[in-house]
Order: sequence, then C-alpha cells, then structure tokens
Amino acid sequence: MMIKKKIQIKEDIFSSNDQQAEAIRLLLDQHKLFSINIMASPGAGKTSLIEHTIGLLRNELHILVIDGDIATSIDAERAKAAGAASIQINTGGGCHLDAFMVDKALSDVNLAQFDLLIVENVGNLVCPASFQLGTHKNILVASIPEGDDKPYKYPGMYQGVDGLVINKIDLMPYVPFRMDYFLAGIELLNPGIEKFMVSCSTREGIKEWSEWLVNQVRSKRSLPRTTG
Amino acid sequence: MMIKKKIQIKEDIFSSNDQQAEAIRLLLDQHKLFSINIMASPGAGKTSLIEHTIGLLRNELHILVIDGDIATSIDAERAKAAGAASIQINTGGGCHLDAFMVDKALSDVNLAQFDLLIVENVGNLVCPASFQLGTHKNILVASIPEGDDKPYKYPGMYQGVDGLVINKIDLMPYVPFRMDYFLAGIELLNPGIEKFMVSCSTREGIKEWSEWLVNQVRSKRSLPRTTG
Repeated sequence: MMIKKKIQIKEDIFSSNDQQAEAIRLLLDQHKLFSINIMASPGAGKTSLIEHTIGLLRNELHILVIDGDIATSIDAERAKAAGAASIQINTGGGCHLDAFMVDKALSDVNLAQFDLLIVENVGNLVCPASFQLGTHKNILVASIPEGDDKPYKYPGMYQGVDGLVINKIDLMPYVPFRMDYFLAGIELLNPGIEKFMVSCSTREGIKEWSEWLVNQVRSKRSLPRTTG
Repeated sequence: MMIKKKIQIKEDIFSSNDQQAEAIRLLLDQHKLFSINIMASPGAGKTSLIEHTIGLLRNELHILVIDGDIATSIDAERAKAAGAASIQINTGGGCHLDAFMVDKALSDVNLAQFDLLIVENVGNLVCPASFQLGTHKNILVASIPEGDDKPYKYPGMYQGVDGLVINKIDLMPYVPFRMDYFLAGIELLNPGIEKFMVSCSTREGIKEWSEWLVNQVRSKRSLPRTTG
C-alpha cells in the first residue's frame, strides 16, 4: 500500500510538471521566443558554451539565460558578463530544474524583448531528463574526458534530447576516447540526432552551433503568432 | 496539506534508509570488512580508479566490488576482469544507490571471505550524497577537466565525504584549472579532508591511495569483533 501511494505521488508530480511545461511552451510560442534547455554532467562545459554563444550572437539576438544551480550565482554572473540578461535559480539542493521553477523565474520578465531563451539545467546526467521545462529543444552537452561509454550508461538522457554538443574535442589527443564507439551508442539510442563537435577552449565548432541556433530562432519568428 | 504529505514521505524514506545503512554497517563490522562508497560525476574516473586499485592490491586483499549503474554491466565486468569479485546493481533509471539495494546485493555473499568492499555509486554529484549506504568511508572522485568551481557549486557532496581523490591530474597542462581556488573551496566545506592527487592514465598517486586503503583495512582487522 505504502509503495502504491509513493508511485501515485510520483505520477502526480510528473503529470503536473508536464502541464506546467505545456503552459510555458504556449507562452513562449505566443512571444515567438525560441528556447533550449541545456543539460549535462557537472563540468561538461554548459556555462562555457553559453558564454561563447552569447559572445557570438549578442549583436544579433536578445538573449535571456536562466541558470539552475544547487548553490551560488557563478553561472548567471558569467552569462551576464558575456552580454545576456540572466536569472539565477538556486534549487537549494534539488538535483534538477522543473517547469514550476522556470515559470516562477519568467514571471517578472517582459518576454517580448527577447529572441532566444537558454535554460541551463543543474549538472546531472540523470534527473533532469525526467522533467520537461516547456522549451522547444532539449540539448545535451557531452564532453570528451567523460569517456566514450556514457550513451550506454545514461541512456535516458541520450534518448530524450533533440541535439547533442560534443565539447572539449581539443582533448582528444590526451584521453582514451573511441569516437566510433561513442557515436554508435548515440545512433542506437537517438538515430539522426543533430550533432555539433565543439571546443570551448579553441572555439572550434562554436560558429556552426550558433548558426544552427540563429536558424531555429528565425524559423520561430517566421511562424504565425499563436493565440493562447 | 499535499506539500506536508510529500515532505513527510521524504523524511520517511531518508530515515528508513538510514536504519538500513546502520544494519549494513553492523554486518560489515561483524565481519571486520572495511568498506567505501565511491561517488563522482559521470566520467570522473571511478571505474578506472577501482580497476587500478584492484590491480595493485589483488594479491594482498580479497576485494568485493558492488557496481551501481542505471543500465549495463560494463563497470562490474571491468572490476571482475581486474581481479575482484563483483556484483552489478542496475537501478533502472534511479539516480543513486540506497542502503536497501546494497543490502540486497550483499544477501547472497559470504562476507567472511573478503577484506575490502568497494561500492561504486551511480555517476551523479547530487543525489547520492543524501543516501548513506552503511560503508565506513564516503569517497568522492573529482577530476581536473570538470573545473575548479565544483566544490562551490555542489557543496552537499563535497561537505559529506571523508576522502577526496583528485583524478586526471595529467590533464592539468591542457585545461584551465586553478588548483588554489579548488582547494580553497574544499577547505571551506570540509577542512582537513584526506586528499589524494592521482592520474589513472599515468598511474601517478595510485600507490599512495592504495596504501591508505590497506591501512584502513588493517585498522579494521585489528579491532575486536563486534557482537551484533
């Protein structure tokens, strides 16, 4: 009985999160605001990727960043210093963002002034995969030093995303990493997924990734305005 | 009311986990079996560290490894190939091990034949910190490419461990990592914690770490047998 009760509550949490995520998606669509949710292990390079993306696109797009962290506002400060508006969410120990946190963060924002919303999730390759945030694309940042077996070991995350940024490719000569094996795992779980090879240190590939983002923003802008 | 109910259930889960962890600790003490719980981000090098530790100590100690993963038995197979007995726990999506999973894994094991139990947790820098497994020491593996801000951003994990292995120090020349800033964060959260600088690639520091482990095993052996 106790177990049944726990499962019931878990289902309630997921379904009410999904409803909130739907409401956020509708709101973003009304403002023709393209949005991504960036997920990764701790230290894969989410914040660095966001910094470089802002650096390249700050004159072209108005960017809002929501940074999710357990503690500190280091990431939001980095996004702000790079030239975007930023909001920090501290989860106070929580291992992922949920749609309610994002909704609260957006409540005082004039969405009409932005073209692109980037949500940076808590560094975690497990829990964030279960919580939709209402963003248009879920993006995973993998990094070379994490190892080539990660798709096989964290299938839920690799399966559930729409785009994959493979970061720290400049470290390929210094670590054992079989790219074939890694890509075979991805192909198995998420065939045809959009992939970007980048290095936030050398800036290789950042331009291609940023161009893809700009194209997504433009496609969203060209759509007819949704009525809620 | 709903929120209160959820909090109550959360407390129940933690407290019943702690009771189970206590029972495991008692069982391990009865067998004078020293045990560690190794936690880290995905790809920090837990499995490689365990492999090298087994490689150095396999003639000296009888080692049992319990490997926690969301999917696959890659890690348990690596531990077995290195020369230890190993048991795989697949959490089926779960983001951490708990004491009940460890208890179940140990249920068919003749503990008297082992000197050292190594539990490898799910790769996650958040959730495993909240679940004691009954092991004698909680060990965190950090790695250089993860970045020097991790103690500040994941304080719960850094605060709650008894030992810290800093892995991939061979990558120091290739990534931006301020060791002073990293160590200052650790000193703030966990002053005087036992630290080991290692590289699983060059094997630097593995001997010192392994010697510390052997000393822990010997101290445990020299204690009088606990009566349950």
